[in-house]
Amino acid sequence: MKTRVLSGLIMLPLLVIVILNGWVLYAGCLVISLMAAYEFFRGFRELDIKPNYPIAVCSIVALYLLGMLRYLAIRTTDGFSPVRVFSSETWIYLWIFGTVLACLLYLFSIEKRKLEDAMVTITGIFYVGFFCYTIGELALMQELNILVWLVIITAFGTDICAYFAGVTMGKHKLCPKISPKKTWEGAIGGILGSVILSGLFGLFFAKEFLIHCLVIGFLASIVSMFGDLTASIFKRKMGIKDYGNLIPGHGGILDRFDSVLFTGPVVYFYAVIILQMFCFWL
Amino acid sequence: MKTRVLSGLIMLPLLVIVILNGWVLYAGCLVISLMAAYEFFRGFRELDIKPNYPIAVCSIVALYLLGMLRYLAIRTTDGFSPVRVFSSETWIYLWIFGTVLACLLYLFSIEKRKLEDAMVTITGIFYVGFFCYTIGELALMQELNILVWLVIITAFGTDICAYFAGVTMGKHKLCPKISPKKTWEGAIGGILGSVILSGLFGLFFAKEFLIHCLVIGFLASIVSMFGDLTASIFKRKMGIKDYGNLIPGHGGILDRFDSVLFTGPVVYFYAVIILQMFCFWL
Repeated sequence: MKTRVLSGLIMLPLLVIVILNGWVLYAGCLVISLMAAYEFFRGFRELDIKPNYPIAVCSIVALYLLGMLRYLAIRTTDGFSPVRVFSSETWIYLWIFGTVLACLLYLFSIEKRKLEDAMVTITGIFYVGFFCYTIGELALMQELNILVWLVIITAFGTDICAYFAGVTMGKHKLCPKISPKKTWEGAIGGILGSVILSGLFGLFFAKEFLIHCLVIGFLASIVSMFGDLTASIFKRKMGIKDYGNLIPGHGGILDRFDSVLFTGPVVYFYAVIILQMFCFWL
Repeated sequence: MKTRVLSGLIMLPLLVIVILNGWVLYAGCLVISLMAAYEFFRGFRELDIKPNYPIAVCSIVALYLLGMLRYLAIRTTDGFSPVRVFSSETWIYLWIFGTVLACLLYLFSIEKRKLEDAMVTITGIFYVGFFCYTIGELALMQELNILVWLVIITAFGTDICAYFAGVTMGKHKLCPKISPKKTWEGAIGGILGSVILSGLFGLFFAKEFLIHCLVIGFLASIVSMFGDLTASIFKRKMGIKDYGNLIPGHGGILDRFDSVLFTGPVVYFYAVIILQMFCFWL
């Protein structure tokens, strides 16, 4: 328990990165994507599946580079600037095509490869790399990037509140086959905790979005648990307990961020579609 | 041989669809995507992997619907039209997220599922569904959609010319472990044939793009062979000879279109990036 608390302090630099937000957080997301993909791929060693990490690195770095170029392209008002071409969605298509193509070509050493090697590479890039990337996109959204805090608050808030609610009141098992200790009481406590914490955040730091903070607190809390369970399913099938031991007592990056991978996209899409696009109709 | 020729006639309706181009071809690509994904998934039965076809159908239909909405959005000049919001690349991100999320949630019946079930679903949607979708996008490009012919000409041209060059002059094996009959002589013949046929097409039907037709004829011919070999790798690992027997003597849709899946994106990206965006700099 003492190791756990002390190791928790290692998370402090991450807090600084979230406070700085913007490009610092964008770069932080890139680093976390790469580390998490590494842990994800390593987990498949037990199943004798060998995904290709260099392809994942190239693909994830390209994704963040393209995002940067698009950011610059959209904010460049000079109509003749070459960077303008990066405002097109074609580059996202090209990224998907390049990523999948590289993974398929990886199979060409047919005797050394299994189909799973390519499929895990594809899955890892999209699940770990792309899901995390949406947090980076959120960090670059002017006026709305304060909502990045909700990604963290809902993920960790749900986790902690569910733990205490489960320990004190837990009776009915939630999904014993995936995660035997989880209970319905814990899940409900987690959702309530997440909504309350998100509401408090809205009240003090983003009053104009208070209602939206409560809605996000509810939605993200639910997907947060799915994120946690998804990681459990992978680990169970891989036959491992933790993805890594980077943070003693906490496991690897991916053990800590399994829920964040799911709350990230939800907050991002809520911000873009509900909060930003809604302005079109008003 | 007679069956093969007669069955070839079944391909005639496809020619009509390519001639009509535009939305008809767009719809045709959707149908072919869905059929090809079905065959791809069915091939995994032999390996006792059960991908989820309904998820693939929903995902692929959503991709085409979003493409349609974005087409309308970009061409709607009225700034206050609700359809305008679909011009954002966010919807493509949402599509990726939704697709991967659905496949991961499919694993939650943990006892009935293997990790491979989800990973094959993801791979199939991106490899078969998305690659084919780029042809649909190309079909909607005004002034450039005549280049759809090059997708067909390079894929089938390479295949046929490589076959005859290989039969008459073939000596040096290309990749005996993947496809034992293919030779370097065949590959070179295929590339030459593709360049010549693409050049002839340019000369008669798209004179303003003649040089580009020759370049596409060369590039697409090479990826065409990779497309063919990729399908061979999958089939070899699955332990099947053909993906299906929809067209007697020709195998399934995916056996016929394995190269088209690769030439499609190449012609599309060439058209958008080299031909369309290049105008920005001029």
